Amino acid sequence: MRTSYAIGVDVGGTRIAAGLVERKGRIVKEAKRLTPKTGPFAIVDAIIDLAEEIQTGVQSSEVAGVGIGLPAQIDFLRQSVEFCTNLPLAGVDVRALVMSRARQEVTIDNDSNLAALGEYRYGAGKGSRDFLMITLGTGVGGGLFLDGEPFRGSRGLGGEIGHMVVDLDGPPCPCGGRGHIEAFLGRPAIAAQGQTVARTPEGWAILKVAGGELSAVTAECVLQAALAGDPPARGILLDAGEVLGRALVGLVNLLNPRLIAVGGGIGEAADFLVERAAEVIDAEALAGRRDVKVVQAELGNDAGVLGAAALAFDEHDSREGLHR
Amino acid sequence: MRTSYAIGVDVGGTRIAAGLVERKGRIVKEAKRLTPKTGPFAIVDAIIDLAEEIQTGVQSSEVAGVGIGLPAQIDFLRQSVEFCTNLPLAGVDVRALVMSRARQEVTIDNDSNLAALGEYRYGAGKGSRDFLMITLGTGVGGGLFLDGEPFRGSRGLGGEIGHMVVDLDGPPCPCGGRGHIEAFLGRPAIAAQGQTVARTPEGWAILKVAGGELSAVTAECVLQAALAGDPPARGILLDAGEVLGRALVGLVNLLNPRLIAVGGGIGEAADFLVERAAEVIDAEALAGRRDVKVVQAELGNDAGVLGAAALAFDEHDSREGLHR
Repeated sequence: MRTSYAIGVDVGGTRIAAGLVERKGRIVKEAKRLTPKTGPFAIVDAIIDLAEEIQTGVQSSEVAGVGIGLPAQIDFLRQSVEFCTNLPLAGVDVRALVMSRARQEVTIDNDSNLAALGEYRYGAGKGSRDFLMITLGTGVGGGLFLDGEPFRGSRGLGGEIGHMVVDLDGPPCPCGGRGHIEAFLGRPAIAAQGQTVARTPEGWAILKVAGGELSAVTAECVLQAALAGDPPARGILLDAGEVLGRALVGLVNLLNPRLIAVGGGIGEAADFLVERAAEVIDAEALAGRRDVKVVQAELGNDAGVLGAAALAFDEHDSREGLHR
Repeated sequence: MRTSYAIGVDVGGTRIAAGLVERKGRIVKEAKRLTPKTGPFAIVDAIIDLAEEIQTGVQSSEVAGVGIGLPAQIDFLRQSVEFCTNLPLAGVDVRALVMSRARQEVTIDNDSNLAALGEYRYGAGKGSRDFLMITLGTGVGGGLFLDGEPFRGSRGLGGEIGHMVVDLDGPPCPCGGRGHIEAFLGRPAIAAQGQTVARTPEGWAILKVAGGELSAVTAECVLQAALAGDPPARGILLDAGEVLGRALVGLVNLLNPRLIAVGGGIGEAADFLVERAAEVIDAEALAGRRDVKVVQAELGNDAGVLGAAALAFDEHDSREGLHR
């Protein structure tokens, strides 16, 4: 049976968003709440409540299922949460718990993988068979689409673009490694650079955006100052674009993709950062540089919910033997 | 028709090797010659001569075709040579030229991709569906096998593992980039480190292997001294293993492979280098580290010829609609 809707849930460190999504990618109803801090079961309850709230008035036979993006490393084959830094979900059988109460098929995946799937199906990556997405957020994540299919690796743990080494002696990464992409391009790294500059006379514009409070300088302050034309703030983000470009050189040489989208708050707002990355690829990558276009992601915060819904549609259709 | 043999040709900067290969991967006949330095047509002639020499006494209907590995970036879909550093083959239609005289189907690919295919089909990667091979030679190359299939990227230019950035301010790479894996692990890089050490009193063992001649210190001298137990030489290769491991951390996080094989003269000889890389992965990669085994390649110099033959078998079988 060809269903009309899927429920996409995007679980973040601070909030959970859920959406009732049509096959064509329109979110017809949406709900959000803060992520509970009182343990794993409160989080699962919040997911279930949101999913129920959102499908009120819709027949359950019209719903393909629930897709859930979690900020965690997921064993996609076993549908288990392997590792979760910001929420107490490691080892918690989120899928089974939600399924037992929501009485709908549930599939979980990594949140960045799903944001990438959202862009692939409904946004910047639409129509491209060899697509790579990188999301610059608190963490740096992404997703790979090879030969028209999401690629997750042997056990579904792949796609961790943010945790590739780009600098042997680079700064420590939140994951425990060193010199990973995330250690340069995650929000904390950008904020730290913003604070360094804000300590100097040239940093007045960044400091002003932060209300004159050095400790209040965030990545968003740097972004805001840069978008207002402040050269030092722009410099920080251009340097970030340079690092991003250097990292993408390797991925162009390795994977020969047709399209790369840069997402996340900073990626979608700072076109000049993305352009710098594209220039670096053009200057340094091998012959595959001529095949690839680098663009900004399009779906903003909706990417996660849309990707989670796309996953629910895909899983439903493969259960029913339907093709896209 | 199910053919019994394929011809594999491995074109290197110094020599061309050809082999008549059975389906199970046994090389029944082999021939080699130096790579002509007198231009592209001399190289093509040498390939044709070798292919003819090797199939004397075999009916042409028994031969699936000719596979040729070239030290070049290949557009696999168009079967064209895009870029070739060491030989004057860029833009030369090697496939058509060989095919017109050898009167057999010919397929070309990048030599490292084919060495990886050889290991995948007949060597260390046999039976693994998610396999990654990296070859430490003059250049550093490799191949990806995802979901049981060789992965080449949208236009066949992928698999250039050696040209991923691992150090933002790293040494220049022969490709024109900077801080690529090859700039640390290619033979010239190892040789340069050997020479640096050989200039000091601690470097006596390396210098001795080179006949006391500083300019004669090659990567092989470092390897030989290391295998004889010389600590400074071992130190150079352990550092190389560290860099290799750091690079592979990113690939484990991105691709979640089951098996990684390290090949090339140094990779196959220096087990301690490969072990060091495995230790680094174990210490720094995310959850996917538990899925992956790191081993040494097995086929030595035969990998290229065997992989080229495997390609010829594959292409033949897909033309005939046969499945492996």
